[in-house]
Amino acid sequence: MVIKVAVAGPRGRMGKEAVATILKNEDFLLVSVLDHKKEEEFFGDSIPIFTSLQELIFQTEPHVLIDLTVPECVYEHAIIALENGVRPVIGTTGFTDLQLEEIRKKAEEKEIGCIIAPNFSIGAVLMMKFSQMAAKYLPNVEIIEMHHDQKVDAPSGTAIKTAQMINEARMTFEQGHEHEEEIMDGARGANFSGMHIHSVRLPGLVAHQQVLLGGEGQLLTLRHDSFNRTSFMSGIVLSINEIMKQNKLIYGLEDIIL
Amino acid sequence: MVIKVAVAGPRGRMGKEAVATILKNEDFLLVSVLDHKKEEEFFGDSIPIFTSLQELIFQTEPHVLIDLTVPECVYEHAIIALENGVRPVIGTTGFTDLQLEEIRKKAEEKEIGCIIAPNFSIGAVLMMKFSQMAAKYLPNVEIIEMHHDQKVDAPSGTAIKTAQMINEARMTFEQGHEHEEEIMDGARGANFSGMHIHSVRLPGLVAHQQVLLGGEGQLLTLRHDSFNRTSFMSGIVLSINEIMKQNKLIYGLEDIIL
Amino acid sequence: MVIKVAVAGPRGRMGKEAVATILKNEDFLLVSVLDHKKEEEFFGDSIPIFTSLQELIFQTEPHVLIDLTVPECVYEHAIIALENGVRPVIGTTGFTDLQLEEIRKKAEEKEIGCIIAPNFSIGAVLMMKFSQMAAKYLPNVEIIEMHHDQKVDAPSGTAIKTAQMINEARMTFEQGHEHEEEIMDGARGANFSGMHIHSVRLPGLVAHQQVLLGGEGQLLTLRHDSFNRTSFMSGIVLSINEIMKQNKLIYGLEDIIL
Amino acid sequence: MVIKVAVAGPRGRMGKEAVATILKNEDFLLVSVLDHKKEEEFFGDSIPIFTSLQELIFQTEPHVLIDLTVPECVYEHAIIALENGVRPVIGTTGFTDLQLEEIRKKAEEKEIGCIIAPNFSIGAVLMMKFSQMAAKYLPNVEIIEMHHDQKVDAPSGTAIKTAQMINEARMTFEQGHEHEEEIMDGARGANFSGMHIHSVRLPGLVAHQQVLLGGEGQLLTLRHDSFNRTSFMSGIVLSINEIMKQNKLIYGLEDIIL
Repeated sequence: MVIKVAVAGPRGRMGKEAVATILKNEDFLLVSVLDHKKEEEFFGDSIPIFTSLQELIFQTEPHVLIDLTVPECVYEHAIIALENGVRPVIGTTGFTDLQLEEIRKKAEEKEIGCIIAPNFSIGAVLMMKFSQMAAKYLPNVEIIEMHHDQKVDAPSGTAIKTAQMINEARMTFEQGHEHEEEIMDGARGANFSGMHIHSVRLPGLVAHQQVLLGGEGQLLTLRHDSFNRTSFMSGIVLSINEIMKQNKLIYGLEDIIL
Repeated sequence: MVIKVAVAGPRGRMGKEAVATILKNEDFLLVSVLDHKKEEEFFGDSIPIFTSLQELIFQTEPHVLIDLTVPECVYEHAIIALENGVRPVIGTTGFTDLQLEEIRKKAEEKEIGCIIAPNFSIGAVLMMKFSQMAAKYLPNVEIIEMHHDQKVDAPSGTAIKTAQMINEARMTFEQGHEHEEEIMDGARGANFSGMHIHSVRLPGLVAHQQVLLGGEGQLLTLRHDSFNRTSFMSGIVLSINEIMKQNKLIYGLEDIIL
Repeated sequence: MVIKVAVAGPRGRMGKEAVATILKNEDFLLVSVLDHKKEEEFFGDSIPIFTSLQELIFQTEPHVLIDLTVPECVYEHAIIALENGVRPVIGTTGFTDLQLEEIRKKAEEKEIGCIIAPNFSIGAVLMMKFSQMAAKYLPNVEIIEMHHDQKVDAPSGTAIKTAQMINEARMTFEQGHEHEEEIMDGARGANFSGMHIHSVRLPGLVAHQQVLLGGEGQLLTLRHDSFNRTSFMSGIVLSINEIMKQNKLIYGLEDIIL
Repeated sequence: MVIKVAVAGPRGRMGKEAVATILKNEDFLLVSVLDHKKEEEFFGDSIPIFTSLQELIFQTEPHVLIDLTVPECVYEHAIIALENGVRPVIGTTGFTDLQLEEIRKKAEEKEIGCIIAPNFSIGAVLMMKFSQMAAKYLPNVEIIEMHHDQKVDAPSGTAIKTAQMINEARMTFEQGHEHEEEIMDGARGANFSGMHIHSVRLPGLVAHQQVLLGGEGQLLTLRHDSFNRTSFMSGIVLSINEIMKQNKLIYGLEDIIL
């Protein structure tokens, strides 16, 4: 069966890649896009553009809605989609707990799948999940994340998420030497529940993270390099295929890949 | 409860480390060792030395027998131990299928645990297992193993085992470019069911392996460094604790750690 | 002084980047381009296009000619440029020894600089040069080069060039164990004068190389990652600046950067 | 010619390795050792032990004195050795400027070599020197040093030395984004003249450092792994051979290896 897909936010950086990915995948059919304005020339007339999700669903009957728009719209989109039997695949975070609960209830009521994934990169999700699994046996952990020097905040969201996941799996304790001393402030990085996080920023870098887990006489290193945006597309393809088999809300790719 | 432990092969390189590890662990009590000869001065009389396993069990009643002797003896040791209600933790490979089957039956009959672990390094086992899990989603894999230049054979046993485990998780296919050409023989390494394995040998190196899994726009790297023999000890400690809760044969640490 | 630059081959992948790089650099002025055909709309009239190098030089008087065309043209371009007092910066290999000799003589006769650089990536050139310097003290070397899986040949040209440079600095000897044995063919990689070269090919990768130099108890690793084509541009900028100070043929960036 | 060598401080960790290294090297002859007390059984009578350096030189006439004693003694040792025509190879830091000046003058007066090396690991010295050379072209630098978790101070002395050397080669500037923001304190590491230094501490690690130099589209990584103390011995061997050819004070191995 060919899966009919609609894309909300087709003009953004992620949206453009998603449109290209769906167009070249034989198992998927791009039936329509949702945009905030209608520009005739967008896909040379071949893909209809809508500004109303209701209208889009009514006229083009997608199985799946890929939503790559801004956080302000996604909750409403998700509810409308689920109401109409369309499965949402959402790449935005920023839902309130209440909104998540509403989406969860609606998916269960309609008995169809819905995926919310803060990170569509399968490799990054595997790195995070493996770190959590390994920390149970090798609880001494340091995280080094490396990004281009145009990134403003440090540490990265992925590094913090990784530390949170690891923290669920290990007892909390202060790592390093009891009398550890920083000759220069900050040398030992950020301290997250006793774990240390280091942020490297250099021109040329894209998005990289390594998790180091040390034990007596050994070191386990889990590293993910994201060289460009296409690394997210395999996760979107996986989500579209997987959501057809699900009948409830899935939060995070880790719940469907491991 | 303190676990009473006996060690077979206490004079070998692994055996010495095992003895030291058990002596300094408060949860364990080293009650005796099994050796091929009796040397009075060995542990200054404090730990009795036996040359017969039957005798050792009869007189010192260990819960667990750590067996680090040569392959020729371990099968017999395992059967005797199980017969007498002692749980074997075995760090040797080289059992025949028939022997494994006998051990499995004996453990089930007696309803006690028995662990056979080709590799006691928890980090190495995690690397192998994670590689297998990840290959399902990122099936393009290359393995680079690196050892000191006194190692004769290439690739290493761990690299081959890793490739076998990965192969169970992914469909077999030839990686690389369809018209790939080696300008110099061997450049692309060894070919294991389409996967490539590379063996680096240099003075200074100890034992290291990385598994590289590539996908569109991304790379996942799982790396294990073994800096010295003590890396095996955490796996032995884990096995002693775990075997007390088991009632059958466990083959490979991966079955108890993941 | 602003350096006046002309670009030959402005429509190729490298050429486009070079044009963009020169346009945004305040120290340079792009005065003209040499192309095989004249398309009016190319730079919106602002940059004149020529199909004859003589004409280009006569009318726009560049100080420097960046030549990113095919090997068939570059020799002739270089001679014409030098004859007319224009300094060539050439990013192509494939000259015959005779042609190189002619270019060398012409540059000396005219007392102006000429740069031929097989690799404009400063980082890659540093990696190669440092490898050569280090091999004098740490002569046990292995090279691992890693590229995307659409690359046909293995090892890469850079890996072979690196091995050649290292070979000039160390005595030749067979590395590894005297009785080394490949259980699987190719495991130990390609053998270049006793050094081993390993080629990894995976989707997602771009162009990466690491040179490992082992010694007693230690390992020195020199690694270069090229994430995209812009890595070549810093070498072109450096070459333009440097060529103004030179009065002879320079072959390879290593001669001006170290 | 066989070089006659004496070792001061033969019982310390470095001293023991040095003695073993000299004994197994055919080009060297260990003629005596200097210790604070005389124990007959030390080398089974074969190597004479002295408690006075004057006496040692007078009776055993070494060409070279390897000094691995504490900072309090080395200055006096060096002066006595030089006075008597013996070349000192010193692996201690902590000289005052005045002392260094005196040693320099004495070596020049006597026209013999003297080597003071804060770090005898050739690989580490190469890493530092290459970092300095590369920073001229790739001035965006971050340093990650990694040690076992029993190390008290951070960053390591080698990391600080590396940063100082790099700083001599590049203009000082603040790296990273202009509006960079640490969500968690210390994430960006220690700031050394705009460069960032990160210190990782984990059980299992020995002594490792990587210097990352980023440029547009590329990354150059210079990494040194010290797996055990023997990594220092190649530098001592090199120093003994080299000092015979020198006629002045050499400070740091970099002056003789590059």
